[in-house]
Amino acid sequence: MAGVSSLDELIEALRCLPGVGPKSAQRMAYHLLQRDRRGAERLAKGLDAALQHLHHCARCNNFSEAEVCDQCLSTRRDPTQLCIVEMPIDLNSMEQTHAYSGLYYVLMGRLSPLDGIGPKELAFERLFNRAADGVVKEVILATNFTNEGEATAHYLSELLHARGLKVSRIARGLPVGGELEYSDAATVAQALLERRDYS
Amino acid sequence: MAGVSSLDELIEALRCLPGVGPKSAQRMAYHLLQRDRRGAERLAKGLDAALQHLHHCARCNNFSEAEVCDQCLSTRRDPTQLCIVEMPIDLNSMEQTHAYSGLYYVLMGRLSPLDGIGPKELAFERLFNRAADGVVKEVILATNFTNEGEATAHYLSELLHARGLKVSRIARGLPVGGELEYSDAATVAQALLERRDYS
Repeated sequence: MAGVSSLDELIEALRCLPGVGPKSAQRMAYHLLQRDRRGAERLAKGLDAALQHLHHCARCNNFSEAEVCDQCLSTRRDPTQLCIVEMPIDLNSMEQTHAYSGLYYVLMGRLSPLDGIGPKELAFERLFNRAADGVVKEVILATNFTNEGEATAHYLSELLHARGLKVSRIARGLPVGGELEYSDAATVAQALLERRDYS
Repeated sequence: MAGVSSLDELIEALRCLPGVGPKSAQRMAYHLLQRDRRGAERLAKGLDAALQHLHHCARCNNFSEAEVCDQCLSTRRDPTQLCIVEMPIDLNSMEQTHAYSGLYYVLMGRLSPLDGIGPKELAFERLFNRAADGVVKEVILATNFTNEGEATAHYLSELLHARGLKVSRIARGLPVGGELEYSDAATVAQALLERRDYS
């Protein structure tokens, strides 16, 4: 149907969004065109503006409009702690705890050899330079407890140790409010292995 | 964080997509900025182009770049049959059957009083004018078998009947390859009610 080519193009373009297949893309396009043209306009503008203005913070690698982001420039954060997370969304999770006041480094991914993502693609050298600034005393690895996140943590710990840095890993165990009965065996086993003195 | 405002705006803008909540919007924004900037650019352009070029076909109400779409202009379609569907995606489903060669009318929605969508919002008058062109002999109601789709079909059938048109409804029943054992009782009951002579 030659008459709907810009519709087809929009549907195809929507598929660049993660988790959006042909059917969802179609539904999204119809929704935008039929029910939310202002939203579509806003989205187009938002994409343009973000592409133009957002870069990576030179220190923490998170998205930032400035060369160094506000968080890295903040004097209220403890510069001796550096927490390494995979993605900005993980940084948000950490911040929501209000339990951490150090600085961050965002990997923007995880080691994933099958997807061709290795130490080079994640620019680990930049991270090592950042961690070896002489101020950082402890690097806290907060990558996910997936296979890839674990491999990334393991790899980083070796190389950070080699640079004489103290490296720690966030704990595994039962979730707060968790019950043994409803936890998987691996989690319970890990919670047992990583048990701490009860004082 | 003042430094990431265009990121926040993009995340907020992505939420206009149906089924996209705050977490998905965040994931999408990060994905686009980190892994698919070309896709983001293409999406922004696709939105702009679609908003600019796409309107509704004056005859079938489907999206079209021309005033009347190719399908409505086609001489290979049977103009005596008019199939009414809720959305363009339903039209596609009908077309994929290769079992229908008549024309369509796309409601671009369904009656949904709770959402404030009534006969006026769906421009039923336009549909009635279209159906009463003197050429259409049968109107086939192919709205979904949801409560709202059924209500829409019922409402339309009364008003189309009143205009002296022959109105039919696509059949309910077990799906092709369907087994009684795995079908819900309502579907089986309907399949029984709507049984046809076996010849």
